[in-house]
Amino acid sequence: MTPNIDAAIAALSHLDIDTKPASVKSKSRDLFWYSPVLKARLDHLVADFAVSPRTEAEVIEVLKVCYAHDVPVTTRGTGTGNYGQAVPLAGGCILHLNKMDAIREIHPGRAIVEPGCLLKDIDGACKADSGQELRMFSSTWATATIGGFVAGGSGGVGSVHWGALRDVGNIIRLRVVTMEAEPRVLEIAGEDLHRVSHAYGTNGIITEIEIPLAPAYDWVGLFLTFDNFTEALRYSYALAASDGLLLKLVTVFEAPIAHDYFQRVKPHVTPGQVVVALMVAPHAMPGFETFTKAWPNAEVIYRSDRSDWPRDPGLVFEYGWNHTTLRALKVDPSITYLQVGYGTDDPIGLIERVRAKFSPEVLQHIEVTRQGGRIGMGGLSLVKFTTEERLDEIVRIHEEMGAPNFNPHRYTLEEGGRQAVDARQLEFKRDADPKGLLNPGKMIAWDDPDWGYDRMYAWPGIKSAAE
Amino acid sequence: MTPNIDAAIAALSHLDIDTKPASVKSKSRDLFWYSPVLKARLDHLVADFAVSPRTEAEVIEVLKVCYAHDVPVTTRGTGTGNYGQAVPLAGGCILHLNKMDAIREIHPGRAIVEPGCLLKDIDGACKADSGQELRMFSSTWATATIGGFVAGGSGGVGSVHWGALRDVGNIIRLRVVTMEAEPRVLEIAGEDLHRVSHAYGTNGIITEIEIPLAPAYDWVGLFLTFDNFTEALRYSYALAASDGLLLKLVTVFEAPIAHDYFQRVKPHVTPGQVVVALMVAPHAMPGFETFTKAWPNAEVIYRSDRSDWPRDPGLVFEYGWNHTTLRALKVDPSITYLQVGYGTDDPIGLIERVRAKFSPEVLQHIEVTRQGGRIGMGGLSLVKFTTEERLDEIVRIHEEMGAPNFNPHRYTLEEGGRQAVDARQLEFKRDADPKGLLNPGKMIAWDDPDWGYDRMYAWPGIKSAAE
Repeated sequence: MTPNIDAAIAALSHLDIDTKPASVKSKSRDLFWYSPVLKARLDHLVADFAVSPRTEAEVIEVLKVCYAHDVPVTTRGTGTGNYGQAVPLAGGCILHLNKMDAIREIHPGRAIVEPGCLLKDIDGACKADSGQELRMFSSTWATATIGGFVAGGSGGVGSVHWGALRDVGNIIRLRVVTMEAEPRVLEIAGEDLHRVSHAYGTNGIITEIEIPLAPAYDWVGLFLTFDNFTEALRYSYALAASDGLLLKLVTVFEAPIAHDYFQRVKPHVTPGQVVVALMVAPHAMPGFETFTKAWPNAEVIYRSDRSDWPRDPGLVFEYGWNHTTLRALKVDPSITYLQVGYGTDDPIGLIERVRAKFSPEVLQHIEVTRQGGRIGMGGLSLVKFTTEERLDEIVRIHEEMGAPNFNPHRYTLEEGGRQAVDARQLEFKRDADPKGLLNPGKMIAWDDPDWGYDRMYAWPGIKSAAE
Repeated sequence: MTPNIDAAIAALSHLDIDTKPASVKSKSRDLFWYSPVLKARLDHLVADFAVSPRTEAEVIEVLKVCYAHDVPVTTRGTGTGNYGQAVPLAGGCILHLNKMDAIREIHPGRAIVEPGCLLKDIDGACKADSGQELRMFSSTWATATIGGFVAGGSGGVGSVHWGALRDVGNIIRLRVVTMEAEPRVLEIAGEDLHRVSHAYGTNGIITEIEIPLAPAYDWVGLFLTFDNFTEALRYSYALAASDGLLLKLVTVFEAPIAHDYFQRVKPHVTPGQVVVALMVAPHAMPGFETFTKAWPNAEVIYRSDRSDWPRDPGLVFEYGWNHTTLRALKVDPSITYLQVGYGTDDPIGLIERVRAKFSPEVLQHIEVTRQGGRIGMGGLSLVKFTTEERLDEIVRIHEEMGAPNFNPHRYTLEEGGRQAVDARQLEFKRDADPKGLLNPGKMIAWDDPDWGYDRMYAWPGIKSAAE
């Protein structure tokens, strides 16, 4: 199956198409370079052209043409993903959905939007319309699209109240176009949502999203210091477990993360201090103060509503989730990260055991979330990278200790997830993408259902740097 | 200390004062008669007069006059409490706060109201103002006051999301007047809230309440049937644990509660069917349907947004919390109830063991709530009453089995609660009510701090029926 790139470009020339090498190269990249492993493998990859449809009808046209000419299609929003989701392993077409950015409807508790809307713009529109905002968003809120968040995210700021994006109720409906001779438009809801959400655009193109909203508040961002990491974890767990306190972010940074990597926080902390970052609803602040008073070692060093810092640190959530890694990387380019699940049974104990094993080679950055009706913890741990072998060993030891990894040094869905075939995603791909042209190489189950996950999967179809 | 009733009445005669025996008698009662034990002890009690202040200044005047003349003061809202909170054990003055019903301020996430506001009126005003409503309310929403809820309630409809009323953040601030020669006005917040909330007006009079709000939605009320009680509990637990599904009520009724006691539900259920009552946000309904589809034995028999029942059942929450008991009582006057805590560790197992022991003498009515960041269950069990001795035995066996009771057949704070002195409430009473004139007889710690709780406390000062 050889793609006929020229024929596809010709057939799509009346659309907003881009064939300029420099800009196509830039549109072929996401933030995969947070991972030295992915950087080594994906850095050279580039699509043949990019196209920015403005309507669902144009999406259908692009898919139809690419299907006819066997051209792979990799979909992107603004490219803020970290797993190479938006990197075209086999070249071909970049389907750039940035122009599909209409906010169609806003209702009490829900909005209907196009995939190219920025998270920030949805929040702005919903707040202006009716004092509402998204339940949760990635720390790339200011630049990321809702389509990318749904297709490649797992949760974020707000998950401490609402749980994960995949939890029932956190996506209401998706409208999806299939990759066939005659593309179909499907309305996906209920259990079927698992087929296409977090599927990296491998089995359909999302053209409309119905998503629940929560009330918008003027969240107060805070930084607190503790001298003791375990105490900071205990505080954060108990705070998140206070059902009457409305929170949007609870994040813990092992020392010296805040001192070494958060430049505007640095003047206010010592290298030995553990920092907790919070977002608290303004009407929950009196309760927050009551709660915190019972922890004599907790010191509030910053609150966004009453700051006296000469240099304002900006939005507190832009220190959490994967912005922590970004800030560390900017200071020390050898830093990379892990994504670790510490669960709900004894997350603090497990984190302590892992920390005792690895600190300071691995520094704990913990996000507190709701998981299945309980408080859970996840780690976006900072790793001082040495070699791939050592990184793999660190991951392996974590898993042996009972802390599963969602490996961000892999470009396939399975290796970044639960290391198992997702039968629902695979089945849907068979139906919706019979030629396997959508984001090829990202779903191991499609290519090699018997893969053993004992080593990193290397898609045979990936373009070499020499090509 | 003999009260000078006549002098007090004379001194307050310019206020809205009521000395007519019939209406004073009616204002001396609450819904204590749900308990045959309390009915036997409180039915004859009546105050000497009632007064309805319109302002905080008038409250101060009443307290000052009653203090000067040693007149006991028992405060009431609309008298929907069930523990005799509003019954004047020693006669004296009923302080009726129904005229203090102003909604002072509504802000994003919070409102400031007077204690005599009906819960329903607060919701109406907040919804009209800005699409908001109370986080939680008692099933007596239509007739109860916010002051009574704060002074005598523990949670209710909404606690499945927000936890208990006493949880930090669920009351922001109270303004309280003390009972002294020169009454003081105190602003109570933080940890101090525990001194006066749920204190039955024994240690201060609440004149203003600042309370958090949640977004108002057109909640969908539902009834579901199950054939199996344990499965209904498991379903309800798992539903409430779905962090992405916004719920306001999750209630389970053992068979044949719904059939025997819910007249408009009866035509739609068999005596053997277990019923689950729910309130689900409209934008959570698709997710609710997805969730419920995985439970093949769950059948939705009613949803308020699409009802085809010839006789509408009305508000679904008026079947839950203590409205369950009310409905059962109306059909079978020998029914009374318990308040049981099943906790968060293994609530379903504990409920099953208790049920195996007592059904059908005791029928399980379960409310699912959030407790300390986990899903918990509480019971407002229906009891076929025979004798006080048997009722006490049932309570004792529950406690031996590990299910603590908040005994609704007692009129003291301690016996209705944790059966221990609340040092904070006692300390505050010493400060705020030095003569012990506020709702006398309701705080054991004030009268007999060494009480052993081995039998029902009988306040020595209670008026006998012959007086």
